[in-house]
Amino acid sequence: MATRKEVAARAGVSEATVSRVLNDVGPIKEETRQRVLQAAKHFNYAPNAIAQSFARGKSGNLGVVLPYVPGVHLFSTFYFSEMLSGIGAAAKERGYDLLLKFRSLETDNDYELLFQRQKVDACIILGARNTVEERESLVRLQAAKLPFCLIGQHYEELRCNTLDADHVQGSYLAVKYLLDQGHARIAFLNGSPAYSNSQDRLKGYLKALGERGIAFDERLYVEGNYSRTSGYQAAPYILEQQVDAVFAGNDRMAIGFMQKLRELGRGAGQDMAIVGYDNSDAAQFTEPPLTSVAVPFYEMGSLAAAKLLESIDANDEKEIFQEKLSTHLVIR
Amino acid sequence: MATRKEVAARAGVSEATVSRVLNDVGPIKEETRQRVLQAAKHFNYAPNAIAQSFARGKSGNLGVVLPYVPGVHLFSTFYFSEMLSGIGAAAKERGYDLLLKFRSLETDNDYELLFQRQKVDACIILGARNTVEERESLVRLQAAKLPFCLIGQHYEELRCNTLDADHVQGSYLAVKYLLDQGHARIAFLNGSPAYSNSQDRLKGYLKALGERGIAFDERLYVEGNYSRTSGYQAAPYILEQQVDAVFAGNDRMAIGFMQKLRELGRGAGQDMAIVGYDNSDAAQFTEPPLTSVAVPFYEMGSLAAAKLLESIDANDEKEIFQEKLSTHLVIR
Repeated sequence: MATRKEVAARAGVSEATVSRVLNDVGPIKEETRQRVLQAAKHFNYAPNAIAQSFARGKSGNLGVVLPYVPGVHLFSTFYFSEMLSGIGAAAKERGYDLLLKFRSLETDNDYELLFQRQKVDACIILGARNTVEERESLVRLQAAKLPFCLIGQHYEELRCNTLDADHVQGSYLAVKYLLDQGHARIAFLNGSPAYSNSQDRLKGYLKALGERGIAFDERLYVEGNYSRTSGYQAAPYILEQQVDAVFAGNDRMAIGFMQKLRELGRGAGQDMAIVGYDNSDAAQFTEPPLTSVAVPFYEMGSLAAAKLLESIDANDEKEIFQEKLSTHLVIR
Repeated sequence: MATRKEVAARAGVSEATVSRVLNDVGPIKEETRQRVLQAAKHFNYAPNAIAQSFARGKSGNLGVVLPYVPGVHLFSTFYFSEMLSGIGAAAKERGYDLLLKFRSLETDNDYELLFQRQKVDACIILGARNTVEERESLVRLQAAKLPFCLIGQHYEELRCNTLDADHVQGSYLAVKYLLDQGHARIAFLNGSPAYSNSQDRLKGYLKALGERGIAFDERLYVEGNYSRTSGYQAAPYILEQQVDAVFAGNDRMAIGFMQKLRELGRGAGQDMAIVGYDNSDAAQFTEPPLTSVAVPFYEMGSLAAAKLLESIDANDEKEIFQEKLSTHLVIR
């Protein structure tokens, strides 16, 4: 491949200028920029991540698959927004753009299409669930040797790149904290078991109860759908169970629960202890502030993108990575 | 072009099955799906937006340019997350994917590159500022007849597709409300004037004061950068000015201001009236809840994407659209 020196000579500029143009570090006169780009093109000189991806016939895009639910403002949910911020930062640093692919949960089950259309070099899948169709689609993706990584979802049956948080530990910390506060009847407002993190949280809940010799009481186990509304709607039933504490699988459900509690004239924190999950911005703004389990969503996103993009830039045989980042309880 | 009937005959399936496969409305046996796709390919049959974009040699991608600031969790800011949710929904409904392009504010000033790389069919630009470089880049983009739309930013000097909210009106409503409450010394904590919405809000502030014959007092005008920290840091100076009310250019700055107020032992709402802007989720969680100007960010995003994608699907000469959606005050 040509050297920066040759490009500089052909364009009639300094080598420093060549670097500034090709690495997009301006300001540069447009006319100069064009001359350098043409000279670089003449030699097929490829200095940075984007240019290299083109030289290799790659798209320079990192695909991100997101669940699409009409009416849901996906990017406004802390879980997705934080992971996307991390993914975006890691991609930007490596000269990649993000190609967002929205999938309708019931109909779009073919992850391969993304790659058949030659639009992405690798893919991160968010919001995957444990269904037959999705496992089959992931197996096809793997068989096609297309690099991808799941964030926040793992399968017993399927070994692939995953980046997750230790939700068994996070849930255990939350419930142990409530037990240490002297609470015994602790309701667990969880999300759908189709998500592995819901199942992990149930394990943590059972582990903490088990350590104190407290048997699982299914009347204290309630499933919402991670929306504020579902927490709001679950409140009356939970209160009927004469619980003295509630652990919610995310802050949104905890906040919905607290809203209903307030409407019923009962204050959170006074006669009812509540712990949320995610440690979202909202948790600090509630009255009283919400104790919550902090999950490193941003780091999960940036680490997944970094590992995936490094693995495709390195052309050797890829090793599967499976990481779990730890969580911690933020007491308020 | 071939008919759906011919495709169905070649694939040996019903016409309904052809539609279900090509419109991704499952479930469909993978083997059947492949047969239909091959038959459709044989006839170059192009029924839906994606297929059509391929038939026309388009990418099927809607580009979205976002400002990149290291350390800032962009998707977690209400302003961007809501607009992206709207853009994403409108794109998904039309069979487009989103290509997110992060631009470093100081260095990436060439919007054209996106298109030169043939990666997007049209582009929505968020977070554009009124600088010489950006106006020049937008003029180049326009000269190249590449379809794009600005959201939340407009220029006196440059006529192009824009979708915005009426921030003069929104700001006017907020300040008029404070005046109606009997407040006279109203500080305005605004963002950078490089954004047209900051300038629009200043106009609304001046209009409301003018109607009451209140002269502009520059000591009551403070500029932050729309971050919570900047609101927090501005608080001591603002309090020194003996104001009885504060209008903040967004909720984040208002919330930062309230945090500092609380640390100083002064409660918001009691001896100090505060109105925010954006009506973000956080506004309802603060104590006391924050009165704020509701901006239809989601609708701005979905409308901009819908108009832009319709204009490129219709191959006739494009008319420039410039829309301003109205805002309203949410009193809490």
